[in-house]
Amino acid sequence: MARKKKEAAPPGSGRRIARAPRKLDGLDVKTLELIAGTATRVQKEILARELPELSFPTRALSNVKYDTKIGYFQLGKGRKARALSVNTVKSFAQTLRLMAISKEMVENNDFATKREAYYVSKNWGDCKFNEQVESDTVMDDIEALASLEGLSREQLRYYPEEHGGSVAGNLVVIDTDSETGNRLRIDCTGFGSGAYSIPHSVEHLGFETDAEFILAIETGGMFQRLNNHKYWKTARCILVETAGVPTRATRRFIRRLADAKRIPVYAFVDCDPYGIANIYRTLKVGSGNAAHINRFFCVPQAQYLGVTPQDILDFRLQDATHPLLEVDVKRAKDALKNDPFFAAHKPWVKAIEHMLKMGVRAEQQALAKWGLNFVIEEYLPRKMREKKGFLP
Amino acid sequence: MARKKKEAAPPGSGRRIARAPRKLDGLDVKTLELIAGTATRVQKEILARELPELSFPTRALSNVKYDTKIGYFQLGKGRKARALSVNTVKSFAQTLRLMAISKEMVENNDFATKREAYYVSKNWGDCKFNEQVESDTVMDDIEALASLEGLSREQLRYYPEEHGGSVAGNLVVIDTDSETGNRLRIDCTGFGSGAYSIPHSVEHLGFETDAEFILAIETGGMFQRLNNHKYWKTARCILVETAGVPTRATRRFIRRLADAKRIPVYAFVDCDPYGIANIYRTLKVGSGNAAHINRFFCVPQAQYLGVTPQDILDFRLQDATHPLLEVDVKRAKDALKNDPFFAAHKPWVKAIEHMLKMGVRAEQQALAKWGLNFVIEEYLPRKMREKKGFLP
Repeated sequence: MARKKKEAAPPGSGRRIARAPRKLDGLDVKTLELIAGTATRVQKEILARELPELSFPTRALSNVKYDTKIGYFQLGKGRKARALSVNTVKSFAQTLRLMAISKEMVENNDFATKREAYYVSKNWGDCKFNEQVESDTVMDDIEALASLEGLSREQLRYYPEEHGGSVAGNLVVIDTDSETGNRLRIDCTGFGSGAYSIPHSVEHLGFETDAEFILAIETGGMFQRLNNHKYWKTARCILVETAGVPTRATRRFIRRLADAKRIPVYAFVDCDPYGIANIYRTLKVGSGNAAHINRFFCVPQAQYLGVTPQDILDFRLQDATHPLLEVDVKRAKDALKNDPFFAAHKPWVKAIEHMLKMGVRAEQQALAKWGLNFVIEEYLPRKMREKKGFLP
Repeated sequence: MARKKKEAAPPGSGRRIARAPRKLDGLDVKTLELIAGTATRVQKEILARELPELSFPTRALSNVKYDTKIGYFQLGKGRKARALSVNTVKSFAQTLRLMAISKEMVENNDFATKREAYYVSKNWGDCKFNEQVESDTVMDDIEALASLEGLSREQLRYYPEEHGGSVAGNLVVIDTDSETGNRLRIDCTGFGSGAYSIPHSVEHLGFETDAEFILAIETGGMFQRLNNHKYWKTARCILVETAGVPTRATRRFIRRLADAKRIPVYAFVDCDPYGIANIYRTLKVGSGNAAHINRFFCVPQAQYLGVTPQDILDFRLQDATHPLLEVDVKRAKDALKNDPFFAAHKPWVKAIEHMLKMGVRAEQQALAKWGLNFVIEEYLPRKMREKKGFLP
């Protein structure tokens, strides 16, 4: 990876690990072209005794646009330039080195976490990063640059540290054996009480399914209940546990699956401002401070199945609610006032105002008031018969 | 589950979900005997016009004993009694009702999270819990009672909300289809870049493996690296991602697997007081405030592979370390001063003092300084050749 000082590496076996047979796909080729193109241009300018310049999209809310038809926050046209100078020489070099590692990783079918990339730099001499926040910033710039070409950080082979989501149900995930390159079929009906754990990067996965929808579930407890009682079989669906706010990999997994199979995505989360304004909103349209990646990591086709404020009345959950805390009220009012997503959808404004008026929140597990499996036997079937009632 | 007020349940399809064919195993029978025995005794005392009493182990550090040979904190002989009186009638009734639900769940092969159990009580009229902390306390008492009979909360069918760990490598997990009762073979070599996600309860799982050890890995990034490069194949092992402090289910999974197959467990975590005193210590001997469950949820056979303070020198990671923060120093000093586990193991005292003297911590991903796959090609093979160097 990083070039080593010859005397420095500790002694060891020297054994090299097996690599998968190299198969560059279309996105790999595009990634290599982006990197080579950038490097070639910089080299040319240097050889012509000009000062080279790299230009990155500005990553800030001021450079974001929102179009309800497109369905997620998008990068605007703002750019910031990083010209080579005495002051920028280090970060300029670091940017090129991180891109060079990307190239090696694509060629070798390898990957690094952001943290690993930081540590790799420790062998770069004067060019090393002193803090991970420095390498993260440079990487975010590169990611924003690549996003203009339709490439995500995963294509640059920098993977997030966290993965997260579990999956069960009517789905076969097609993966590739990293050693032999052979096709692997992973049948998500076959994990018993366990589940399939989504990897850090899902770009290479394929899917086979006859499911009619994807159900994204906030809590592990509810996922486990629906999985153990095979709700996915009776309802012909795929269960995905988001475990709170879904990670990048989980969002991307749902998005790619829903796009590929043209099936709807229903979110089943707690009825509280966090479930609505953080978990669901992030799943559906992404987040404000990461507009350069929302196009990959949001699920615009998602709809909100429940728990809705109206469900509290319809399913008589009043005595299984909790009063809204101050932080809940603040979050709800912020959503109404500042969030372009909620502002664009009247039914959401009404629903959040309804919750504020009732002054309570309800967890999805509150349905257990009517029996542990009421959710399977009554709640979900009734909701699925009235899909028009889903919130946008 | 909970008896319903007849008029109260919202209308629905009335469809009942499929149940697995009932097969009570030995622990199920023991659980039912414990519940029935308790209930019968209470009933007899009431019929004899006596005031019944329930007696629970005291859950406090003052009622804990530690024996290095046994290897985990154990409950002492302290008991607290809950006699039926005007003041205790509600919690007395709640205790019996939670035990009654346990009985139903064992008989129906179902389960509930602690949160669901709380909500189920909302249909108990005057007897309902007002806050989840009340139901949690009663459940902890029942759990402590059951632990005296060698039964854990999972056998009472109350499952934790979180599950956590991912697994990959030379392991076939044997599960049971919840609908048909058929045996399921889950081959953990077959998930590509993904993994097997450990369920909330693992008591019913069986294992087939020819692995020589289990490697418990702190970070998702490292797990992904070792999995994608099939370290489990070259080293003939099973990889378990703990994602920080391992959950109950993850600890129990490792313990049952290591016991059943008599294979060692090596922990691979960050070299910092949190990795050592929280993650590793909890994995190996459990925690102080949960002594009634440590016997089930610790892994006494675990050993600490690394990263050790000495590794920082041996693998020349000095410039890839971070200074210890005040909170780190405090945690390390607490471990030396107050923790019976570290006090009982001289090599640990030395190692922690060594870290304090150097004043730095090192993450497991710091090994990336020597190249992304240095950990696979050099570090782990070298450590595995010197197992005597593992910390206890």
